[in-house]
Formats: sequence, C-alpha cells, structure tokens
Amino acid sequence: MKEFQLIEHFFRDHGLKRRDVELGIGDDCALVNPAENKSLAISCDTLVENIHFLPDMPASALGYKALAVNLSDLASMGAEPAWMTLALTMPRVDKQWLTEFSQGLFEAAEYYGVSLVGGDTTRGPLAMTITIHGQVPQGKALTRAGANNGDWIYVTGTLGDSALGLDILLGKQQASEKHKSYLIGRHYSPTPRVLAGQALRTLATSAIDLSDGLASDLQHILNASSLGALIDVDKLPLSNALLETVSKEQAINYALAGGEDYELLFTVPESQRGAIDTALLHAGVKFVKVGQVCAGEKLKFIQNGVPFQPGFAGFEHF
Amino acid sequence: MKEFQLIEHFFRDHGLKRRDVELGIGDDCALVNPAENKSLAISCDTLVENIHFLPDMPASALGYKALAVNLSDLASMGAEPAWMTLALTMPRVDKQWLTEFSQGLFEAAEYYGVSLVGGDTTRGPLAMTITIHGQVPQGKALTRAGANNGDWIYVTGTLGDSALGLDILLGKQQASEKHKSYLIGRHYSPTPRVLAGQALRTLATSAIDLSDGLASDLQHILNASSLGALIDVDKLPLSNALLETVSKEQAINYALAGGEDYELLFTVPESQRGAIDTALLHAGVKFVKVGQVCAGEKLKFIQNGVPFQPGFAGFEHF
Repeated sequence: MKEFQLIEHFFRDHGLKRRDVELGIGDDCALVNPAENKSLAISCDTLVENIHFLPDMPASALGYKALAVNLSDLASMGAEPAWMTLALTMPRVDKQWLTEFSQGLFEAAEYYGVSLVGGDTTRGPLAMTITIHGQVPQGKALTRAGANNGDWIYVTGTLGDSALGLDILLGKQQASEKHKSYLIGRHYSPTPRVLAGQALRTLATSAIDLSDGLASDLQHILNASSLGALIDVDKLPLSNALLETVSKEQAINYALAGGEDYELLFTVPESQRGAIDTALLHAGVKFVKVGQVCAGEKLKFIQNGVPFQPGFAGFEHF
Repeated sequence: MKEFQLIEHFFRDHGLKRRDVELGIGDDCALVNPAENKSLAISCDTLVENIHFLPDMPASALGYKALAVNLSDLASMGAEPAWMTLALTMPRVDKQWLTEFSQGLFEAAEYYGVSLVGGDTTRGPLAMTITIHGQVPQGKALTRAGANNGDWIYVTGTLGDSALGLDILLGKQQASEKHKSYLIGRHYSPTPRVLAGQALRTLATSAIDLSDGLASDLQHILNASSLGALIDVDKLPLSNALLETVSKEQAINYALAGGEDYELLFTVPESQRGAIDTALLHAGVKFVKVGQVCAGEKLKFIQNGVPFQPGFAGFEHF
C-alpha cells in the first residue's frame, strides 16, 4: 500500500485549483462549494483495458480520453465542468506510465476548467473510473427527453472517424499516413463539445452525446418522447479522411453505428433554427441538420429520397 | 453491451429517491440540487476482488460494505450523506449476484439516506468504485488538520475486530462459533459512524476514520499538525470476542494495526471533554479516550505506564 500511496504525488497539487475547491486531495473527502441557484450534474464512466481501450494505447491519450468521455456527458446536459474524482486501478506502479497518464489527464482538465479533488488508487487489472461534476442553472439542463414532433435533428462535427480510427489500429482497415494520423487522433482524443452544449441550453429541446453511434443514441431521445425520426444519410457530416479511406456505404455505416464520436446530437424546434447559427458560432463547432423528429415510434433512414437500410446489426462494445 | 444495459434495471428506480434529486439514473448525467450554505464533501473508494475482498464474500455483504466504507469517509468529515454513483465492473452478468449485491447496497443506502443517482456497468475483472457525496455546513467540516498540543485522542466502538474476522476467513485464526460470527460480521459489515461524525463537528479539532489501523491513521492527523501523541494501549477498546480469541498482545496489535475498523478517531480539547458525552449519547455510539496529542513529531505507546513497542511492522493491503 505504501507504494500506492506514492501515486498520490502524481495527482496531488497538480493541475487546476478552482476557487470553489475548499479542500482538495489529501483528506478523507474533498470539500467544494457549489454555486447558488445551480444544479449539480454528476456522471461517471469506467474504462477497462482490453474492453474500452487497447493495451498499447499511449498513456497520455488514455488520461486525456478518460476525462474527455466524461466531459462529453456534461456537454450533452449543457453543464459547465467543475470537479472530478479519479479511481485508478493498475497492476503495478509504473512511474513513466503515471507521468504520461497524468499529463494527458491534466491537459484536458486545465483546458476545460476541471479540478481533480479526490480519488483512489488500487492494485488490480488496469481500469479507471472518473466521476465528473458540472453545474448548470436550475431548470436549464438539456436532457434526452423533450423532443417534439417536427423538431429538426442536428449533430456537431463529423461522424464515424473514431470507429474507423479504431479499425485501423486493429488492422481491419488501412489508410494513407495523413488520414491514419487524423482518424486515430479522433479515436484517441475526442473533443467534448462543452461550449456547444452550454450554448444550446435555451435552444435545443433535447440532447445526447454520441458514444454508441447515431442510430443507437438517437433512439434514446426518441424513446424518451415516444416519437420516431427520419434521418437523411446524405446529410451525415463525413470527413474527407473517412470518405477517402472507405466506400461511401461503409462511411455511412461508420457514421451511423461506429460509436465513440462524442459529438452532440440535439433537436431544435423550427422557431429556433435561426438562433442556433449565432449560438454555436461562438462555440467554434460545425453542425449540420441530418433529419427530423416525426410521429410514430420508428427511426427510419432515407438516401436520395428513398428508404435506406443501414448495413449494420448494432454496435457492441463487447 | 445490450446485456450490460440490462444491469441498469437492478439499480434504476430502486432505493431511496431524495427530494433534492431532480434527475436520477437514465440520462447522460444525474441532476441534484445542493443545499444552500453547505459545502459538498466528495470521496471515492474502489474495491477490487482478491485485493480488497475475497472471491467468496457474499454479494449482499459486498454491496453493503462498498457503500459503508465510503460513508465512513463522510462520517470523518461530519458530513450528511446525500448521493452516490456506482461504477461496477464484472466478468459476466450474474442475476443472482446482482440481486444480492444491490440488496446489500440499497440496505445501507436507505438506512443512511443516500440516493444512487448514476453509474456505469462494464465488463471486466470484478471491481466497484463508489463516489459518495455529502453535505456539511460551510466551514464546519472536520478534517485531519486541526489537532493541538494537549488535545485528547478518542476512538469510537472497538478496534481490531475486523482484521481478526478477516484472519478467521483466511484460516489464520480460529474462534468459537459465537465469536466467529461476530468478528466476521465486523469485517463484512462495518458501521460507518455517520451520526457521531456530525455530532463531533463543533467539538473535535480533527478526525479521521480508521481504515488502515490506529497507528497508521493517527499518523495522518499528527503529520497534518506536526505533532506527536502518546497512546495508552491499556485504554484501547477491545471486544470480548477479540480478547477471548487471541492473546492480549495479539489483541493490541490487531487494534493498533489491523485496519478496516471504520471507527472514528478524533481529537478533543480539554475544554470540550464534557460536551462530547452529551453529543455522542444521541449518536448511540460508545467512545473512549486512548491518549493525548503532545509536542514533538513522534507517535509513542505506553502500557502500564512504561513504553510499549508494538509488534507489527505496518499493515499492508497488498
């Protein structure tokens, strides 16, 4: 245990110290002071070696991504990042690995304004759980519920890059050096759409972050409102790297079912369509309308105006 | 992944629903509304199979203990329990195990007023991380820092039972059926001293919960104030079960270095000695004075008025 107590020094007194952190790492609990009139948004995500990441994933990328996927959950609620705890389980104390992991973690933490306030380090198979805390004005959080018949469906960024990046890492796909670097980068270092989420708080009727793929994640929004949707696969935002590496059909499947894009999917009523251009301009993120919420309870796809049958049976992490 | 999404049903819409929980399990984040003028106390603890618990530990006891050790951290700060997230990693979906685990977890959660607001379930080697959240009036939290020269050192409950219970489970010690049941119970189901911690907020100068053993944990308090302490081993609270199972010398070593008692150790100035009797009466917990904080930076032990050398080299989880 002594050895593991040393790990604390890789994390204690490092990174951002927010003014609302009264007591950070080192006591039995952290003490933080939430802002008045705000709700606290809490989420946690676990990454397990061989399940959620490959054993040869660079430690700095892992540190970055472990936080990024949690920040993406805050983004989808429109919450402002604040504090996190890190539970890190590892088979042995590897100082080089810890140095790189903590660098990646703190890089994301400082950029997004998150203080690491506590955690636990234990021996065991490599895995990490981050619990993230954000704040959102009371009653203003975006949720999966709230979409209405006729709302337009938007997504940020481009879709499918991360899943193709993973397939390149697994040797299932090949790409040019330039595209390979971009696609693997999208898999290792997703960009949580934190500012976009906050900008959408008063405009979107529902939102979710794309962790499992559009087809799967959109279904959560539809289920919450007992509605259906029509997605025009010609409108899906696809990167040049994706389009120049695989066929158009494969590209669409990556975009619909690839997973781990960590872009936002959100619904907007017709009355707010003009306002989101201005709102998202400041967030510096591209976004595009890909479909519309409709009556019924089915999710349907069209291409060139005719029904389209996606070529995937559902994305499974495991 | 589908299979793992089913796990949600063991935890969603179960247990206590606090009024300050705006949105529980089921969206990207939970939303909770912290009380005004209170600080938020946050802590997380991970339990890993074969490291922190034996493979044959009953699932209900494991569910109970996973929360209890986190509640103990809140107790040592004087915080009132509020919300938790659960990150559960398991090799396969075992419904019987999940039923029992969740029963044990919710038993503790309901008793101590905690709502489960979120989590993550993943495939992998059995492990669980709970992040616990409590509230404490601003500026009133107990910490490890604050002990003064001359303060009296107290502990709640009895010490050493849990470690002896573990040794019985490991076949390293033997006990009568009656004592065996009690000692293993103390190992499986520690009692977090939540009410006692709150009662001590205005009386104690420092506090910590005993997870590694008195000798080790007291040192954290002493380090935080650059002070020493004298512990009278004759005053250590030892259960009949402990005293009737091992020698007096072994009993003392279990009490000083056994770990996992999850009792509170706290320091009280002479001026408050009278007040703690009344305060802790309501918390329904026994407590006893075991020593005194003193100048210098050493932790010393006496027995029958003469120096005592503990017979342990330090407790190691691993």
